Amino acid sequence: MIGVAVVGYGYWGPNLVRNFWAIPGAQLLWVCDLHTERLAGVRNQYPAVQITEDFDAVLSDPRVNAVAIATPVSSHFRLATQALKAGKHVLVEKPIASNADQVEQLIAEAERRGLVLAVDHTFVHTGAVRKMRDIIQGGIGELYYYDSVRINLGLFQHDVSVMWDLAVHDLSIMDFVLPESPVAVSAIGMSHLAGEPENIAYLSVFFASNLIAHIHVNWLAPVKVRRTMVSGSEKMIIYDDLEPSEKIKVYDRGIIMGAPGRGEKIHQMLVGYRSGDMVAPHLDVTEALGSELCEFIACVEHGGTPVADGTAGLRVVRLLEAATESLARRGAIIDIEPVRHPV
Amino acid sequence: MIGVAVVGYGYWGPNLVRNFWAIPGAQLLWVCDLHTERLAGVRNQYPAVQITEDFDAVLSDPRVNAVAIATPVSSHFRLATQALKAGKHVLVEKPIASNADQVEQLIAEAERRGLVLAVDHTFVHTGAVRKMRDIIQGGIGELYYYDSVRINLGLFQHDVSVMWDLAVHDLSIMDFVLPESPVAVSAIGMSHLAGEPENIAYLSVFFASNLIAHIHVNWLAPVKVRRTMVSGSEKMIIYDDLEPSEKIKVYDRGIIMGAPGRGEKIHQMLVGYRSGDMVAPHLDVTEALGSELCEFIACVEHGGTPVADGTAGLRVVRLLEAATESLARRGAIIDIEPVRHPV
Amino acid sequence: MIGVAVVGYGYWGPNLVRNFWAIPGAQLLWVCDLHTERLAGVRNQYPAVQITEDFDAVLSDPRVNAVAIATPVSSHFRLATQALKAGKHVLVEKPIASNADQVEQLIAEAERRGLVLAVDHTFVHTGAVRKMRDIIQGGIGELYYYDSVRINLGLFQHDVSVMWDLAVHDLSIMDFVLPESPVAVSAIGMSHLAGEPENIAYLSVFFASNLIAHIHVNWLAPVKVRRTMVSGSEKMIIYDDLEPSEKIKVYDRGIIMGAPGRGEKIHQMLVGYRSGDMVAPHLDVTEALGSELCEFIACVEHGGTPVADGTAGLRVVRLLEAATESLARRGAIIDIEPVRHPV
Amino acid sequence: MIGVAVVGYGYWGPNLVRNFWAIPGAQLLWVCDLHTERLAGVRNQYPAVQITEDFDAVLSDPRVNAVAIATPVSSHFRLATQALKAGKHVLVEKPIASNADQVEQLIAEAERRGLVLAVDHTFVHTGAVRKMRDIIQGGIGELYYYDSVRINLGLFQHDVSVMWDLAVHDLSIMDFVLPESPVAVSAIGMSHLAGEPENIAYLSVFFASNLIAHIHVNWLAPVKVRRTMVSGSEKMIIYDDLEPSEKIKVYDRGIIMGAPGRGEKIHQMLVGYRSGDMVAPHLDVTEALGSELCEFIACVEHGGTPVADGTAGLRVVRLLEAATESLARRGAIIDIEPVRHPV
Repeated sequence: MIGVAVVGYGYWGPNLVRNFWAIPGAQLLWVCDLHTERLAGVRNQYPAVQITEDFDAVLSDPRVNAVAIATPVSSHFRLATQALKAGKHVLVEKPIASNADQVEQLIAEAERRGLVLAVDHTFVHTGAVRKMRDIIQGGIGELYYYDSVRINLGLFQHDVSVMWDLAVHDLSIMDFVLPESPVAVSAIGMSHLAGEPENIAYLSVFFASNLIAHIHVNWLAPVKVRRTMVSGSEKMIIYDDLEPSEKIKVYDRGIIMGAPGRGEKIHQMLVGYRSGDMVAPHLDVTEALGSELCEFIACVEHGGTPVADGTAGLRVVRLLEAATESLARRGAIIDIEPVRHPV
Repeated sequence: MIGVAVVGYGYWGPNLVRNFWAIPGAQLLWVCDLHTERLAGVRNQYPAVQITEDFDAVLSDPRVNAVAIATPVSSHFRLATQALKAGKHVLVEKPIASNADQVEQLIAEAERRGLVLAVDHTFVHTGAVRKMRDIIQGGIGELYYYDSVRINLGLFQHDVSVMWDLAVHDLSIMDFVLPESPVAVSAIGMSHLAGEPENIAYLSVFFASNLIAHIHVNWLAPVKVRRTMVSGSEKMIIYDDLEPSEKIKVYDRGIIMGAPGRGEKIHQMLVGYRSGDMVAPHLDVTEALGSELCEFIACVEHGGTPVADGTAGLRVVRLLEAATESLARRGAIIDIEPVRHPV
Repeated sequence: MIGVAVVGYGYWGPNLVRNFWAIPGAQLLWVCDLHTERLAGVRNQYPAVQITEDFDAVLSDPRVNAVAIATPVSSHFRLATQALKAGKHVLVEKPIASNADQVEQLIAEAERRGLVLAVDHTFVHTGAVRKMRDIIQGGIGELYYYDSVRINLGLFQHDVSVMWDLAVHDLSIMDFVLPESPVAVSAIGMSHLAGEPENIAYLSVFFASNLIAHIHVNWLAPVKVRRTMVSGSEKMIIYDDLEPSEKIKVYDRGIIMGAPGRGEKIHQMLVGYRSGDMVAPHLDVTEALGSELCEFIACVEHGGTPVADGTAGLRVVRLLEAATESLARRGAIIDIEPVRHPV
Repeated sequence: MIGVAVVGYGYWGPNLVRNFWAIPGAQLLWVCDLHTERLAGVRNQYPAVQITEDFDAVLSDPRVNAVAIATPVSSHFRLATQALKAGKHVLVEKPIASNADQVEQLIAEAERRGLVLAVDHTFVHTGAVRKMRDIIQGGIGELYYYDSVRINLGLFQHDVSVMWDLAVHDLSIMDFVLPESPVAVSAIGMSHLAGEPENIAYLSVFFASNLIAHIHVNWLAPVKVRRTMVSGSEKMIIYDDLEPSEKIKVYDRGIIMGAPGRGEKIHQMLVGYRSGDMVAPHLDVTEALGSELCEFIACVEHGGTPVADGTAGLRVVRLLEAATESLARRGAIIDIEPVRHPV
């Protein structure tokens, strides 16, 4: 039985608590938050769980094996470092920290102590994203582009831009499903509310091959869109997370370079649909967060590296950091230092 | 009665012919094309119309008042110049020419001779785009962004990139509906077929204000999308050209900056939907090309400047030219020389 | 403070419990269910609430003012009667009872004792249905038809047909939004699983006017549909409950009887769209069940009749009973005895 | 080369003319219509085709081998009879005639003279409907239901009800794709415009098995819908004719009768989605009317029976006739006399 504490009971914390509560191998011991009135909600719903505003009390409890951190991004590094130094395994909300330097320190600290360091890239645990990776690994031809739109009218964050809030999802999904690593990034964006971070951004991500990736994130859109296209020379995939059941559609389509018709000489020829079917594969509908926490607990208990470990967090934060620099420099291309892919 | 000749009977020419045929004030006299087998189709359907492969024969016919040019882009400048020099009013398929220098020469030639020079920006004659302009002019608050996606699996052009083929539509619509003029542009794109022009591109267009525009065009998408969002601080518009009847939706939505709740301090607060309705206004469904050709004929007959005249063509070509340069330089920001807006 | 007990903790009971728990004026005292393992879930989540398998224990507790019944339909009459006889106010899951005779007895019992008798017609408390009623009451011209499709692949009930499970929603919504009362009903349906109740049914409901209503319910559909059209001579409404925000769309459309064109004589003429807008009005998004239970508690505390009282339950059950008879007689038209409408 | 005449140049005639014009094996000789101004349109577009208001002139032309009739329904029988008696092969717009008695006379006349009698059930020549038949014939388990919705705001006919105008399509598709023949029909409908035929109707069609079919047709709907579901115990099909490319979707879904969970006893158990994929098969996109006319010309030239011959027309008219009787009798069940299925 792994003793668990959840730190931060704001927007996401209750989901962590609900899921840890339901995992047989985990025992939820503490919920820690600086806001007393949030803790009252915990006492009401989970009277068996201890509540506190004092993080040290959590860390000094020897029954606590693992700490899950769901606080604002700016506090991730400090809290995670404290937890690792107290010998606790750590799961951190995305993005794992505010910059790559911090992530490298966390990774080093965890490795030095033999502790699990995981980042909560929830989407990589969904049936849809896992299926998308399987399809891409199964072969969709030469990779052409990855295009994602993640927009809505919703939570406006004060401490991080829309890239750190929304594009982090796309970057973590890309990191999981694509066989190639980005080499450079460019970003353009705008803040429309004085003194607030950017609420709209467009990221372009470059690879060594002809693959190009592009991400549109937006907090001020009239409708909610969650749509990703991944196109190869043989197949094209659409992942629409708002579809109730057919979230993944695979189009057996590609380019047929027809010879120009008589009299067409050179200036125009038809690129046709290859005559295949579209398939919406059946997806595993297990709640992603539940699977993720089970994997985390299993890694803690038996050793092992989670799918989204510190290096995954590092790769994503490197891209966000570079994109932030690019945005400040009106889209200048920023090279990405390679991070080793876990094999 | 205005005598008309159509030059070029490939993809778009038949639409010009069909519409000119139906306009009471116009008399379609000639169809000219270098491909004999295309002309056979004209003879079959419009036996009263003369056909020829010889452009000079058209220009030397004194009954011809106006020439409509629907040939490949690279020939626009030469054919339009010849027609203007022969004293003919001219309507040119979009884009009006291959570069801004050519367009300026055409404008000068037409002004010198007192001839109408129009560009076939068809979309600005649709009920949907006209309604969108009315709504924006009526006021949607401070302008935030213009975002357009125009993608499909379709015609692959050999002589021009996807920007000159598809983004030209978005740029001409933007030129028509927005009260501000672009000051700079940046573009990123890729060609996935060796030796062919770019088949995917992302354009960012900058303005003097906080307005930002972005256009995604793509010839290799698994599905067809034609969707534009225009967002202001008071209202947001979605223009979906694939909707059968509700192409324009106006959302009475904006940002309400709520004070942070108790205990939320600073890091997160809700940006809410303002509680208005969505309206899909009734649209004029007259065929855009018909309206456009009527306007052109009226300008020829009574004098007057068409909505999409040479300067509109110039503004769009300037953006395309700058975007092409930017794309070659991996997204470098290219400033746009201002063109006078017709008042 | 009104003391409340919830009886039945299966599919719907937990929603009642969660909502009663959150209402300031109500104190949830008991949850009663025959299944011990369900009650364990209550103890876990609501340790302050007493649990029991013994309904009499609930009824004999003088602190209990009101009982909410969410058990299988066949037990509604018995349990509601016991509760009323014990002097408790009663809210019953839909349908309120198995036949009209039972409902009349419940109404009489409640009236005799001056107790509130409510039926859980949840949909009439949604912002969408309330808006639809407002629009219809505001006038949409002469009423033409009410057409509803409520289909999915889902829960298959053993004790009641798809009409008593799904059409009950449509009938309760119709009862709430239409100004006219049905005079007859006809139903056709089929059971595709031997020994099970009908899983597909089509109901036609007749009125004294030219209004016609039709309901398609289906447990074995490949996709989920929740779509209602209400059409008048002036306006048409579509209520799509699966739309995330624009659940209600009002079309300013009607018939324009054009004079036949020249040469058309009599056999064909165009009925056109009147050129109005479509509006999706802003909707109240408060959780319907919460509003409903608040109204119930207020009626218990201060007197008053809930929107969905026993007579509403009776009107709906009369239709279901008649539809069941019709279905058994292959669609024979069954007249409906009028029930007084509350004024 | 088969000489062809088209009679009736109103709504549908121009499509026949355009397609016959393009078929190599056919020579369009005549277009006949009582309205002179319509014939002017023919002269304009097809100067090589003779035009006339005199049907006898057509019939007495020995070069005319086949006559296609696209006049109002009430004249079908008279014109088709005349044509057959003049020795011409005949293709008749749907519905083939006004009642079954007429159709039987036409069939007898054609058989007596060895002439082809075809009915223009266009949909059975579409790629979508042909694919649907292939899938059903390939096996989708025990057939459960066939449900179709065909509604819009559109042409309002004066001489026939919405059933004869729209449901005729569904009945001809059902006739083509289902392996069983209807045994009875019931219909309910309403006319909302005084003196006009029914503008809304609901048809139920019964079979000897547990299969049930239902068709909703409506001329006064706020939106256009063309959606058919065919469900078997193993697979479910949705045919949405308004989808641009994925008109047919096949769901590998069926019922899994789970054993009731512990404590559930009998009253409720889950019918689950079987975990298969959804496939939208590639469809032939050839224009249906072109294929149909080619088949007709081939039958005329080489002998052979068209897919939609007189007996197909008869089966459909029998159902329409019975539905009309049922509608007049408020949904009374009307038995259908069996018609031999061509093998």
